[in-house]
Amino acid sequence: MTEAWIEEVRWDAQGLIGAIAQDHASAEVLMLAWMNREALSRTIELGEAVYWSRTRGRLWHKGEQSGHIQKVREIWADCDRDTLLLRVEQMGGIACHTGRRSCFSTRYEQTRWHTVEAVLRDPRHIYRGS
Amino acid sequence: MTEAWIEEVRWDAQGLIGAIAQDHASAEVLMLAWMNREALSRTIELGEAVYWSRTRGRLWHKGEQSGHIQKVREIWADCDRDTLLLRVEQMGGIACHTGRRSCFSTRYEQTRWHTVEAVLRDPRHIYRGS
Repeated sequence: MTEAWIEEVRWDAQGLIGAIAQDHASAEVLMLAWMNREALSRTIELGEAVYWSRTRGRLWHKGEQSGHIQKVREIWADCDRDTLLLRVEQMGGIACHTGRRSCFSTRYEQTRWHTVEAVLRDPRHIYRGS
Repeated sequence: MTEAWIEEVRWDAQGLIGAIAQDHASAEVLMLAWMNREALSRTIELGEAVYWSRTRGRLWHKGEQSGHIQKVREIWADCDRDTLLLRVEQMGGIACHTGRRSCFSTRYEQTRWHTVEAVLRDPRHIYRGS
């Protein structure tokens, strides 16, 4: 059964919507990922962020390997209903697969990109055996 | 002349990249819009957000009609370089064409979307004669 609220989201031609994850406590923007209908339904059921991995072509329960689960506190849609904003509690304090707090770790300054955020945990220790 | 830094961004098949605007002071997420190479170059030149309007098929200097310009304080890229984060000073305190502070004004709760953020200014007074 397709519920009304899920069709009130403006899914793109691929059936996807961009979802921004923001840290609920610090308000830091952590990442942008994608969801399809199933990912959004699962997110709501679980209370944890489930995205659609475009590169892997499958559902991706964020933190399934790393343990860096995102507990979803609030889900917002924008005025066009074509972008979502998740306010999350980031388990482990690390959202990025590079071991950084946020994926937005590279800053533009004076015609160059500078990666300025610290690695909190070596990715080799996050993804053992992967 | 194409500068190196602009090709270090991962433009999608349409030559676009998503750009999240976040209020520099409050850390509120204001909107997600799109940029092409020219929009990003113009943003850096002007120090004000210039997006690519996918619906209008043209450059869109945010605030050109409403006066709700976004002064760009910082530009960040994520780990894949396929999303940008602009930390902005939002002129007029209103980012959304509906007259709200942020475009993320609709919250999901108990199988429904609820538009909960207040309209600060009637859009008829923002877009006179448009």
